[in-house]
Amino acid sequence: MKVNVHFSPLHSDELYFTAKTTVVIDVLRATTTVLAALHNGAKEVIPVNSVEFAMKVSVNSFGGQTLLGGERNTKKIEGFQLGNSPLEYSKEAVSGKSIILFTTNGSKAIVKAKFSETLLLCSFLNVKSVAAYLANLNKDIEILCAGKTGSFCIEDTICAGRLITELKNLKGEELELTDSSKASVILDNAYGNDLQKVLSECEHGKLLIENGFQEDVNYCAQVSVMDLLPSFNNGTVKPLKIP
Amino acid sequence: MKVNVHFSPLHSDELYFTAKTTVVIDVLRATTTVLAALHNGAKEVIPVNSVEFAMKVSVNSFGGQTLLGGERNTKKIEGFQLGNSPLEYSKEAVSGKSIILFTTNGSKAIVKAKFSETLLLCSFLNVKSVAAYLANLNKDIEILCAGKTGSFCIEDTICAGRLITELKNLKGEELELTDSSKASVILDNAYGNDLQKVLSECEHGKLLIENGFQEDVNYCAQVSVMDLLPSFNNGTVKPLKIP
Repeated sequence: MKVNVHFSPLHSDELYFTAKTTVVIDVLRATTTVLAALHNGAKEVIPVNSVEFAMKVSVNSFGGQTLLGGERNTKKIEGFQLGNSPLEYSKEAVSGKSIILFTTNGSKAIVKAKFSETLLLCSFLNVKSVAAYLANLNKDIEILCAGKTGSFCIEDTICAGRLITELKNLKGEELELTDSSKASVILDNAYGNDLQKVLSECEHGKLLIENGFQEDVNYCAQVSVMDLLPSFNNGTVKPLKIP
Repeated sequence: MKVNVHFSPLHSDELYFTAKTTVVIDVLRATTTVLAALHNGAKEVIPVNSVEFAMKVSVNSFGGQTLLGGERNTKKIEGFQLGNSPLEYSKEAVSGKSIILFTTNGSKAIVKAKFSETLLLCSFLNVKSVAAYLANLNKDIEILCAGKTGSFCIEDTICAGRLITELKNLKGEELELTDSSKASVILDNAYGNDLQKVLSECEHGKLLIENGFQEDVNYCAQVSVMDLLPSFNNGTVKPLKIP
């Protein structure tokens, strides 16, 4: 069982992921936000890789049942009902709704990996559940970090390292790690014990705090508080039903 | 003084490096090999990003004074006089010669950064000298790891971390680190104390050893044994004359 980590979606062509088992991580904030939405009863999340496509999908949807969510430069997009703050995705706002989500990094990473056989979304909030599911699935894993506008970001990598460590606790020596997987584990071990601090001091965290999102950062630093497994299939993300 | 690390040349467009101060690292083996060549009296190294271009440059060169060097899949290329093993670049082989170098990762990374104002080549062999020069130059620095066929490799990142630590010893708090720079330092601290082991156990090192290059791996693990500063200018790499 081999585990590989991609520090950014720019590296790989979308065909690379064909028939693979992929986990997309965007700690700040897209995969955390999808978890919040599904946790609060959203019917589904439809990730898109352009604002134009978000608009197009939205026009074809039933009014009132579909919300547009997302951000550009951390801020809500004009004409969208929701930004990319997990705190906005409350029960009142999202219960029973379909959400079309566009974000700078996360939604694009999910769309990039769309040809995966299994495509799960992970953040610190559900890292233990994702590890348990994958340990049971027992296939090679590609972890795709959304990164920050095409390059490395430390918080996604630490979350990847945490996922691998959880997997290692379950699978032991069966796990084969690539260079990038080893690096992720080392970064989590060296740096991941105070997540609130890491998420506040990393480049993306600092940008969010400057823009008034300190509470989001705190929310995203919660570890293994949800059992949800958001799974992408035929264009939409829904919670995976575990048999 | 800001330091940024690129884990692979795939991330960035060549125009990104325009007028910047860039350090290219390819521990296994291109930048180590260039150091060996210049140390043993090669007149210059001409890095190229395709075998075809290597052939073209070679045809226009004076016979006997120019050697073709490089590899594909770790092995010497047919018709080339030298491979990419630093041990081949002995005094007898290279003294006074111009070497046209094509390698899978390193020579391409150098060419990618060709618009830099200052472009230095670094490996463990000259890491202290590069740090001393850059500390004195006092400009923002882009460290470009050659990586392995477009993705992350741990040995270049550890070398980047070592370079940053040496810089920090000289500049202290003046140094501003991006997420990728912080990660490089952590990886060096956690992993870099036994370089022989790291270089033998990383993905690229294992491939080299399988292909008979254990001695190369040992050679590349030497730290700060040369004062040379290979500098790229107008298409060729020569030792920088320090005033």
